Amino acid sequence: MLTLEKKDNECQIGRDTAMQLLKDKIISEGIVKAGGVLKVDSFLNHQIDIALYNEMGKEFARLFKEQEVTKILTIEASGIGIACIAAQYFNVPVVFAKKMQSKNLDGDIYTSEVESFTHGKTYTIRVSKKFISSEDKVLIIDDFLANGKALVGLIDILEQAGATLIGAGIAIEKGFQEGGKLLREKGINIQSLAIVKEMDENRIVFE
Amino acid sequence: MLTLEKKDNECQIGRDTAMQLLKDKIISEGIVKAGGVLKVDSFLNHQIDIALYNEMGKEFARLFKEQEVTKILTIEASGIGIACIAAQYFNVPVVFAKKMQSKNLDGDIYTSEVESFTHGKTYTIRVSKKFISSEDKVLIIDDFLANGKALVGLIDILEQAGATLIGAGIAIEKGFQEGGKLLREKGINIQSLAIVKEMDENRIVFE
Repeated sequence: MLTLEKKDNECQIGRDTAMQLLKDKIISEGIVKAGGVLKVDSFLNHQIDIALYNEMGKEFARLFKEQEVTKILTIEASGIGIACIAAQYFNVPVVFAKKMQSKNLDGDIYTSEVESFTHGKTYTIRVSKKFISSEDKVLIIDDFLANGKALVGLIDILEQAGATLIGAGIAIEKGFQEGGKLLREKGINIQSLAIVKEMDENRIVFE
Repeated sequence: MLTLEKKDNECQIGRDTAMQLLKDKIISEGIVKAGGVLKVDSFLNHQIDIALYNEMGKEFARLFKEQEVTKILTIEASGIGIACIAAQYFNVPVVFAKKMQSKNLDGDIYTSEVESFTHGKTYTIRVSKKFISSEDKVLIIDDFLANGKALVGLIDILEQAGATLIGAGIAIEKGFQEGGKLLREKGINIQSLAIVKEMDENRIVFE
């Protein structure tokens, strides 16, 4: 049986209230697999619960809306839906970094190398230079933060563009992996709606 | 200079009114490349115009909402955003077929082989059997319809599941390629918001 342990502190109370739906979903439908894999494919990254995405999008807007975001950057594939739903509350375009080379992607592009543990390989992410400029104030949105490699790649692209990084809105952070800690130590404003502190076959514990 | 030639018939008037925004965008920002490639990466499939997606989503709802859709099926990556925005107007979940094998995708899955001209290779699409059942009435949503291979693959998966296919909502159809014609001849209800009849470097003409 899965159990939910809550350790609120002051700054998390608002978020915990808003994101109880996400945590409840993780508890009721999430499956912990070998190798630190948390399967949430019934509502987050294969089948998508749109009402949940909307609550997440509103919460990202509450957390970042005062900071004059001009663009939301995400990465294909499972970040796109969350980013699009969230973008409605910011009234800004979404740009998604591509993982696959394509005839549709030519001209000047920013690239960065990302190591994926989920897929067991290194891949190149690409963003057309047309869509991120030094004028942009960019919020990154993604479904997961674990070792942070994808986020580092996206931040690298923003640095190449000379854009301002507002922060990163993440649905689920694996707090037991190092990505969030390392990036916060660099001063990056990372807001994760649910941070899994520990998990095994029998329980998922949130920070 | 791009020119827009309009040939409305009665049943297209409503759609043309609603989708003028899409056609205007194609005319003003679309770029025709060699090999029948229509680049619309500034608003549809790399950078995303969320207001446009919302108009498209409302139009898909108008076209299909009476048919008791229980689920929207799309394919990663560029179908996901449109499907998620549209799903808000249907109040149903989105399922997206995956192109890449992943540790997150195990257990019983439906698969189908899809030949991609854009990426120049054949790939396997995968949907977990958990998320499409014989009870489902499924609307497929995607950004492009050209030769129809992706759509055929998605329909194949629905047939394997014994699900009911309501139809397909497409943003841009290349009417000069055969996919739409072949699938409509099979009796499939395909509603494309903009059908490009012909295009070259100098103009894009809609049906």
